Order: sequence, then C-alpha cells, then structure tokens
Amino acid sequence: MNDEYYLKQCFNLARKGRGHVNPNPLVGALLVKNGKVIGKGYHKKYGDAHAEVNAIRDSIGNVTGATLYCNLEPCSHTNKQTPPCVPLIIQKKIKRVVISNLDPNKQVNGEGVRQLRKAGIVVDTGVLEDEGKVLNKFYFKYASENLPYITLKIAQSTDGNISKAKNKQTWLTGKESIKFVHQLRNEYDAVLVGAGTIKSDDPQLNVREIKGRNPIRVIVDGNLSIPIKSKMLNSTDPEKTWIFTSFSSDEKKVKGIVERGINIFPIRGSSHNLLNIKKILKVLAEHKITSLLVEGGADIFTQFLEKDLFDEIIILQSPKILGHGIKSSNIKKMKNLKLITVEKLGSDIKMVYGKKLSD
Amino acid sequence: MNDEYYLKQCFNLARKGRGHVNPNPLVGALLVKNGKVIGKGYHKKYGDAHAEVNAIRDSIGNVTGATLYCNLEPCSHTNKQTPPCVPLIIQKKIKRVVISNLDPNKQVNGEGVRQLRKAGIVVDTGVLEDEGKVLNKFYFKYASENLPYITLKIAQSTDGNISKAKNKQTWLTGKESIKFVHQLRNEYDAVLVGAGTIKSDDPQLNVREIKGRNPIRVIVDGNLSIPIKSKMLNSTDPEKTWIFTSFSSDEKKVKGIVERGINIFPIRGSSHNLLNIKKILKVLAEHKITSLLVEGGADIFTQFLEKDLFDEIIILQSPKILGHGIKSSNIKKMKNLKLITVEKLGSDIKMVYGKKLSD
Repeated sequence: MNDEYYLKQCFNLARKGRGHVNPNPLVGALLVKNGKVIGKGYHKKYGDAHAEVNAIRDSIGNVTGATLYCNLEPCSHTNKQTPPCVPLIIQKKIKRVVISNLDPNKQVNGEGVRQLRKAGIVVDTGVLEDEGKVLNKFYFKYASENLPYITLKIAQSTDGNISKAKNKQTWLTGKESIKFVHQLRNEYDAVLVGAGTIKSDDPQLNVREIKGRNPIRVIVDGNLSIPIKSKMLNSTDPEKTWIFTSFSSDEKKVKGIVERGINIFPIRGSSHNLLNIKKILKVLAEHKITSLLVEGGADIFTQFLEKDLFDEIIILQSPKILGHGIKSSNIKKMKNLKLITVEKLGSDIKMVYGKKLSD
Repeated sequence: MNDEYYLKQCFNLARKGRGHVNPNPLVGALLVKNGKVIGKGYHKKYGDAHAEVNAIRDSIGNVTGATLYCNLEPCSHTNKQTPPCVPLIIQKKIKRVVISNLDPNKQVNGEGVRQLRKAGIVVDTGVLEDEGKVLNKFYFKYASENLPYITLKIAQSTDGNISKAKNKQTWLTGKESIKFVHQLRNEYDAVLVGAGTIKSDDPQLNVREIKGRNPIRVIVDGNLSIPIKSKMLNSTDPEKTWIFTSFSSDEKKVKGIVERGINIFPIRGSSHNLLNIKKILKVLAEHKITSLLVEGGADIFTQFLEKDLFDEIIILQSPKILGHGIKSSNIKKMKNLKLITVEKLGSDIKMVYGKKLSD
C-alpha cells in the first residue's frame, strides 16, 4: 500500500470530527509499521486530544520505527488547550511522518516539520495536498483570512425563482435535497438568514432529517422586526440563536429577547435595513465561527454576492417552472462563477459553484 | 453475442441517417449467420432504399438461414416510394427476424410481423424496446399524433435569465454549448424562433460549428415586423426560411419577401401578436416536419409551455449570475417537469427535462 492509500484513510477518520472540532481543523492519523496499521485516531472535539495523540494511544505494541500518516502538519506551538504533538512524536521514536498539508496557522506553518526533521525524522509533505485543502476548506479560509468559509445555499425553480412572491414560502425541492441541507447544517458552524425569511418561512434552522448537532442560527434583522412568536425566538436551545441588529432597535424588545437566553449583537450599519455584512462576519469569526451557510432570502444573497463575500454557492434546482416569482438576487453587475460539480439529487439538481478567479 | 449486442449495432447504423430521413424513421439492419455479421445497412435518406434492403445488398455470400436484426418492424405496405421489405425477407429465406419496435405507422403496426410469421419466419420483438423508442422519438411522436416532436431549447444564466433586457442579446453559454446547439439543428427538421429573437439577435439559425445540413428555419411573426435587412431574409438558401404571419400583414412586404424565394404561411390567429401555435404545428406536420427545435424567445416559450406543446426541454445553463433580466417564460400556472439527464457541458450545465406525466 502506498502513502496515498493511508492518507485517504486519515481523511475518512478526520471527517468523523465534522461539526465538532471548530475552530480546529479536521485531522485523522494512522500509524503503520511493517506494512500493518498499528494505530489510528482522529480529532474528535475542540479541546480534546489531537489525532496524532489518539493514534499513538490507540496503537498496539511498540510504535518505535513506525510511519505516522496525518493529513495536517503536527503542531509545535504551546499556545493552546493541549500539549504539542511534535515532542511526543520525537519521544516515541517515529521514523517517518507523511502529511498532506502544512498547518496554515501562523504559529505552526512549517515549524512542526522543521522540528521533526531536526530530530532526524523523515518527513514527506504535499501528498494529496489538494484533497487535504478541500477537506479542511473551512479551516484554511479561517486561518488565512480570519473570516468564516461562506456558502450560499439557494433553492430555486428551473426558471431561477426562489419563491412565488415576496415574503411567501414556496416549497420547491424534494426530500433528498432537504436531507442534504440538514447534512450541511450539521457540518457548518452557523447558518444565516435575513428577517424576511423568518417572517415568510418561520424556519427552525435546526438538524432534524439526520442525526446531528444544531448549528448556531444567525439572523440579520436591522430593525428587530421578527415576530416574537417565531420559532426562532422560542427554541429549546436559545443560546444558539444569535441576532444581529442595529443600535437603534427597540430597547424593550431587545431586553425581552435577551431574557429568553438569545444572543443579540448590535452592529453599526449604513441603515436599519442594511447592516454591514462584513462587520457581522468579523464578529462571527471572533466567536470562532469558521463556516457559515447562508440560507437566504434574496436581499441577503444580493448583499453577499455584491460584496463578493462567498467561497461557494450551492444551488438546489427543482424541476418546476414558476413563470413568475422572486429571483435569488438582484445584483447590479453580472457575476461570473466557476462550475465545480453538478449531479442529480432525487428529482432535483445539485450544483456547486466557486468563485471565478479571473473575474 | 446476444440479440441486444446486434441491435445496438443497428442503432448506431440507424443514427447515421439523422437529419436526412424525415418523415421516415431512423433504421439500421444487420444480417448475422453462423455468429458472423454478413451484411449491414441503414436508411440513408428519404426516398432511398430501406435499411433491410441495404443490408441484404451489402451481404457477403448466401443470406439463406441468416438472422435479420432491425430496430424497427420491416414494412409491409405499398403506399410509399420504395417496395415493401417483408416480401424480400421471405424471398431471401431469412430464418429469424429480431426487432425492437413495431412500426407505429397505422399501415404497418404489426402487419409486417404477422406476414413474416405466416411465412414461417421466427420473429422476436421488443428487444431494447425503450432504447428504440428514444432513438426514433421524432418518428413515434409524428406517427402517433401527426405533430412534430417539440424540444424547447433555453440558454439561461444561473439565476434563470435568458438576456439582460428585452430585445437585447446576451451571450451566456460557452463554445461547447454552441457546438451542441448546432448538432441539434443538424438533427431537427426545423428550428423555430419568434420575431423578437430576429430583432434582438439577428441569428442565422444554420449549422456552422459542425459539418451538417441546415434545418428549415421557422419564424413566427404575426405582423411581419422583422427587418428586411435581417440575415434570415438574406440567406443563400431562402427556400429554407418559412415565415408564419397573420392574414392582415402588409401585402407589399409579403410580396417582396416571397419574391426572394422565402415561404410565407398566413395563419388565422386571435391577434397579430399571438398566432395560434397549434395551427402552425399542424401546417409544419403537413409539410413533413417531424421534429422542431424551439429556440425562443420568452414570448414563444411562454406559448409553448402554457399550451403544453413540448416533449422535451433542454436547458443550457451558464455559470453567470445576471441579477436582472428577462425570464425564459412568464407562464401563469406553475409547471412540474421530470428531470431526465444532467451533465457538465464545458463550463455550462446541460439539463434535459421531459413532461411530468402525473401533472
């Protein structure tokens, strides 16, 4: 078996941490000796042991002389919750380390590799490098730009409408698409909607169709106009509802909502109806949100698109022609995208677009 | 090798006739004896010999005792340009005939099979029946309903706009999609556009990007408003331009256009701007148009969609978000479609939809 084979196993192990490790990366590790896997581990939860440590703890027999496979560079810095992995790897006399990506975290970024090599360990880097970056797309964006990875999720008809009329919910996509959206919610740190979506759809924005954990629910509501009876203000986990509003919102309403255990963040913006999205993203990043799923509606999509604040756009297209309705956005300038994947999803089509870099 | 293997070869032979056999079906034939292909043929052009005759003519050695593979039932009727195939098959002492589909033409429809069996020939039908119907979708529609097979071809942005503004051409799709459209034009008997498309795009509607033959170009223009300088009125093959207009169009303009060798069909309709599409389709069918590619614009798509006059919708979706623009249609009642296939086509997405039968 070659290095890629073992690293793919690390990726699969790493994925098990999805939705639980933020703001840390997804990491899986494998110990191989004499052609046999003698230990494996992954980073399960933020604050818990790293993948490398778990693989060593899990190992059968002596790890001296083994090869360590790990999708991300082992950490060397001490400014965190758990002790660094590099000294442990040296101490355990691992002979060779194979990794996909250097840690973009400025406190590591090659330093782990340098220390390992200095101790006489053979280190190979860049194996399945691109795949490793896709696996940790949230972490790479967050570590390099200190902003969450942003995905716009748009459910639309074949003729590009997201609903029949303003502030009216139109059920477009099938059950496979709905399940997929719940999987996304389980993987993203937070989901975001505008006040209009709360008024028209009264969504729960939680994970119901699959087993998983609920994301943080972010509501952008400049003048705090969402109904006090909306599900979002009456959930069983109010601490996961974060409302961004302006400083001039009704103080009494703010107080009543905060008393329910909901978080309210006042943001200075150009107007009540148009909060500064970039400022909201910075607050989210400060609160360790590394990934954000933007679920609508049209006004929100327009702001994210016009300010180029997205990394990915997922369109779930239903086999319906509405003929009339509300478009996903009303951006002023045409935007070119890059098609990444397209596939059937039940009776719908799932399309994934990225930014077109030459744009 | 089994029956399906040989019939697939018949399909491939049959496809060579695309664009040239209408209103006849696409037919390929293979003669197999002692496990060897001893003859093959296809229907090349309307008026020319049938596939079965070509296979027999092409055969090496004696065809007595051979098996004839043919995607469509051999013909038994004499009301046509060439002599029927059934007597020849009997005379040549073919032992077995394997076919995919019975001929929906009321003058055959099982009669060919009955005559062959009566002569002691073993006949197996229904092998790759569905694939055979897809191959001859034009012929099956035309033979059963006496109307052309209708495909709406819509090029649109990711947010469902066909252009930036009314009567303004917006170049949306990439070169692969354009080439694909030229392939379609080479396969369909006719293409159809509204007068608005002539005014905004001034298209040629011919086959340029691939080697092929030009389709009949149908223009729906209730008040004969298209500019006399438009390419469509100044082509090198004017007999292939067919204009449908109302009886009240300017007689002088009609006369001038007809003098150029262009065909004008006056149609009674509810108004100048809204000719009766169903009547146009009947005239096209009378003129042996078995397949029609509708290329727009929005008013035309709306009429075909609202009257349910389509068999297939092909959407070529460009990776661009326009934000504002003209929608593909403005139908009043939502329409459910059935997704058949979806795939990447260069930087675009090609989606094929059919009618949802339960709708």
